[in-house]
Amino acid sequence: MDSAILLISCPDRQGLVATVTQFIAQHNGNILDLAQHVDQDAGIFFMRVEWDLDGFALTRDAIHQAFARIADPLQMTWQVFFSNDVQRMAIFVTKESHCLYDILYHYQAGDWRVEIPLIISNNTLLADLAARFGIPFHCLPVTKETKPQVEAQQIALLREAGVDVVVLARYMQILSPEFVRQYPNQIINIHHSFLPAFPGAGPYQRAYARGVKLIGATSHYVTADLDEGPIIDQDVKRVNHRDSVEDLIRKGKDTEKLVLSRAITYHLQHRVLVYQNKTVIFE
Amino acid sequence: MDSAILLISCPDRQGLVATVTQFIAQHNGNILDLAQHVDQDAGIFFMRVEWDLDGFALTRDAIHQAFARIADPLQMTWQVFFSNDVQRMAIFVTKESHCLYDILYHYQAGDWRVEIPLIISNNTLLADLAARFGIPFHCLPVTKETKPQVEAQQIALLREAGVDVVVLARYMQILSPEFVRQYPNQIINIHHSFLPAFPGAGPYQRAYARGVKLIGATSHYVTADLDEGPIIDQDVKRVNHRDSVEDLIRKGKDTEKLVLSRAITYHLQHRVLVYQNKTVIFE
Amino acid sequence: MDSAILLISCPDRQGLVATVTQFIAQHNGNILDLAQHVDQDAGIFFMRVEWDLDGFALTRDAIHQAFARIADPLQMTWQVFFSNDVQRMAIFVTKESHCLYDILYHYQAGDWRVEIPLIISNNTLLADLAARFGIPFHCLPVTKETKPQVEAQQIALLREAGVDVVVLARYMQILSPEFVRQYPNQIINIHHSFLPAFPGAGPYQRAYARGVKLIGATSHYVTADLDEGPIIDQDVKRVNHRDSVEDLIRKGKDTEKLVLSRAITYHLQHRVLVYQNKTVIFE
Amino acid sequence: MDSAILLISCPDRQGLVATVTQFIAQHNGNILDLAQHVDQDAGIFFMRVEWDLDGFALTRDAIHQAFARIADPLQMTWQVFFSNDVQRMAIFVTKESHCLYDILYHYQAGDWRVEIPLIISNNTLLADLAARFGIPFHCLPVTKETKPQVEAQQIALLREAGVDVVVLARYMQILSPEFVRQYPNQIINIHHSFLPAFPGAGPYQRAYARGVKLIGATSHYVTADLDEGPIIDQDVKRVNHRDSVEDLIRKGKDTEKLVLSRAITYHLQHRVLVYQNKTVIFE
Repeated sequence: MDSAILLISCPDRQGLVATVTQFIAQHNGNILDLAQHVDQDAGIFFMRVEWDLDGFALTRDAIHQAFARIADPLQMTWQVFFSNDVQRMAIFVTKESHCLYDILYHYQAGDWRVEIPLIISNNTLLADLAARFGIPFHCLPVTKETKPQVEAQQIALLREAGVDVVVLARYMQILSPEFVRQYPNQIINIHHSFLPAFPGAGPYQRAYARGVKLIGATSHYVTADLDEGPIIDQDVKRVNHRDSVEDLIRKGKDTEKLVLSRAITYHLQHRVLVYQNKTVIFE
Repeated sequence: MDSAILLISCPDRQGLVATVTQFIAQHNGNILDLAQHVDQDAGIFFMRVEWDLDGFALTRDAIHQAFARIADPLQMTWQVFFSNDVQRMAIFVTKESHCLYDILYHYQAGDWRVEIPLIISNNTLLADLAARFGIPFHCLPVTKETKPQVEAQQIALLREAGVDVVVLARYMQILSPEFVRQYPNQIINIHHSFLPAFPGAGPYQRAYARGVKLIGATSHYVTADLDEGPIIDQDVKRVNHRDSVEDLIRKGKDTEKLVLSRAITYHLQHRVLVYQNKTVIFE
Repeated sequence: MDSAILLISCPDRQGLVATVTQFIAQHNGNILDLAQHVDQDAGIFFMRVEWDLDGFALTRDAIHQAFARIADPLQMTWQVFFSNDVQRMAIFVTKESHCLYDILYHYQAGDWRVEIPLIISNNTLLADLAARFGIPFHCLPVTKETKPQVEAQQIALLREAGVDVVVLARYMQILSPEFVRQYPNQIINIHHSFLPAFPGAGPYQRAYARGVKLIGATSHYVTADLDEGPIIDQDVKRVNHRDSVEDLIRKGKDTEKLVLSRAITYHLQHRVLVYQNKTVIFE
Repeated sequence: MDSAILLISCPDRQGLVATVTQFIAQHNGNILDLAQHVDQDAGIFFMRVEWDLDGFALTRDAIHQAFARIADPLQMTWQVFFSNDVQRMAIFVTKESHCLYDILYHYQAGDWRVEIPLIISNNTLLADLAARFGIPFHCLPVTKETKPQVEAQQIALLREAGVDVVVLARYMQILSPEFVRQYPNQIINIHHSFLPAFPGAGPYQRAYARGVKLIGATSHYVTADLDEGPIIDQDVKRVNHRDSVEDLIRKGKDTEKLVLSRAITYHLQHRVLVYQNKTVIFE
């Protein structure tokens, strides 16, 4: 089914839903899914609406022009997406394969409307796995000294491949603020803890030392502040005193891969709006 | 805050959201929360919208009249509720107190806009607890022979107390179809299993015998078919081989009370629509 | 059933389980439940064994003497408990009633072999609830200046009532290190966050500001360091962008009360061993 | 680490733990992990004990002989396993790849001490995936008429490959009782529902029709009775009215693959004992 998706945020006021839904109805659009949210404290209105393009009176270009006339006076920040468009997603990895396997599964199964034109790693370990699926693999080792040049190379590769979204699937390097600025709210990371607990390095070691009874994983958009970006999804798993650090690492992987894949799904389906370093997820 | 809530279901067609939201906007209503759902297979549209009555141009009565003019041509089934109205809820119990304790906690804490004018039981065991909270307690033992008369007494008590909703908080009697017919989608039961597994008597015994690894609880509206009514909420809890039947019963109580209280919350906040023996829950 | 419970920790070495179980077998004890754990890194052995006292050859006193002869050469730290002994538990509260309700439910239902001789509060709000259950209620307001005297009063009340364990059921005061020292690993607190995330004041406000997708609760033994004591149990609940701070507070209460009651259960059943600021929970 | 694992079940009596642990201690074995369980109703004792073979006085063969002398008079059913032994696991699939991906991930990551000498399918769809990992793939279509011959072929392949355990990773055929009899408690299936709810065909369709609020998956040993074998593990995932049958199928896959991989882990680590059509899982 070919559908259009509008993502909107703007100052809250009366009649916003009516205005948007009338626009769709007037051009013979049938709404498939609508969700709205108002942050009462902040006074901000959020909306996601998806409608069937079959029989819709406006072309893609005309939608942009026509909706701009509605959106501008209402100070709307808005984007329109089309469900049939194929997005392009790059994967960054290091040594751990669990998240990459789960991503490849969804990719092959056709769960996502996405192409994966490249995998970038600072290590050769997962080159074989990429080769098995015929995905170009770029090994770009990073040192403190070479980081600026390597990041320039990485960005060149992403630009060349026309990448819309970057997934850090347990990539064990910190991207520079300069890199992050190129892809605002387009870089999805998985952190192996229940943030804000245990940000930074060694979260399972620290979870073990603290004696927590649940371990977690957090998927978030990358910002200039390490592990401080807007959280997309989180989950946890029960552990106990019998679990060594190695057990936590092993058990945590299931949570990491599921949380990351769910976050990717929300992003690719245009279900995420970011504001004030938080996310609205229109499930 | 004084708000109005519209619950709507009707055959799906273009422009429904626009029509309803325009009605609210035209009379200066500010939407607080809106959710809609379309069952594509069944072709049915569902909607819940809540708006602030502060500054709204229509009185309660006028809302009914004005909205009927919109709803009738669209074949809408609809109800309007007002958040400030206090509903009246009766509790039926037998011997187990865990659900009643949780209900009394929410009641005393002011979590629900509700009065509890009476508790009905077929046993005296919980009379003391009712007395501690000053709630009239009616002990009406039931036998196979006296059931019709007792149910008539129960219904008389409910009518007299102006009851809107009946909660079976581990009431270990089956209500007759005649009773149920008096309160369609207004009687909430908690069944101590993950339905449709283990309907009827002794679910924990049967869960133990089958060796399941999770036990559950299900809250549903009561219909003439035992444990077959529309499910409002369910949850489960992990168990293992060390758990005896008594352990399952004890552990299950936490799940039962939480699931029942959540279902009551959804009902009292007018978040439930029933169709085809299923529920739409506008969370 | 009358049973004895041994809790043991000691340096790990060969033959420990054999030695302890032989001691029980030689005196005609039938083991009901046995669990052991070795922290391989720390080289510490932990064990909990429960056996039926029916037909056991030794009296309570004789058990102490006989087992000391085994334990001393093996440098065991050990305690023996008897399932029929009734422990005495004090509850500290302030204004929130959800945890107290859940404790009172378990108390009345006979789930725990415990007496509650008193409730202490710095506020009168829950006096009525205590009165309903006939439990002596002591209102002792605390200011910065009066804290030492008030704590002295509290400890005097606890001593007088022969209290074995203190439960802080959302008591919104910090106990002084001097108080805590009187009851090592005997004061159970519930903190309304998933520690180590959001320790200290206002955890739900901070969870809201951070935009987390799960909120949690943590029950732990109180130590001199605020919210840093050994964790007994934790759990979480899913939330989303629609939840206001008030919603988080309301939804979090269910998790808080369940986690606290589970921690109390573990403690009262002598299932907890503390070491290195962590707990071994013999479920 | 090279360790031995004893799995024991026998009529309960005094001194069983002492007898077994003394046997290990006398031959200089250091216990790494011990768990026991008594089914009080059935009067059966279960035990799993794992000890370090480093410095242990007996060879593998001698362990068998020596322990038999202890076990026979106590009517023990027992097996001894060695952690360094590599088990051989066959995978049966049809069209769905999610469980196979998860198994291949664990296999490649070295999470399991296992070889996968072959994959058997009644369909060619997953031949490519098997080829990518260099695992022999046998496509054996089955019809009602050819089933006996095909099963004979399958068993011949399994025998030839020296297979210890068979995993039905969404194999959409029912094995005959004759097949099952060849591998008692050695065939692990994943059923895509929370058994005993929705056994047999179309569980997601039936879950949708019933309007459940959680969907589940169950891993169990295959017996002659369809979906009635001993349950190894189960889990569930929350769904809601917005989920179509297709959504349930898609969301359920995550639960299916995790539950199946956990069950395989328990089996391969010799943590499962079967009795009375139930399992004891020594986690």
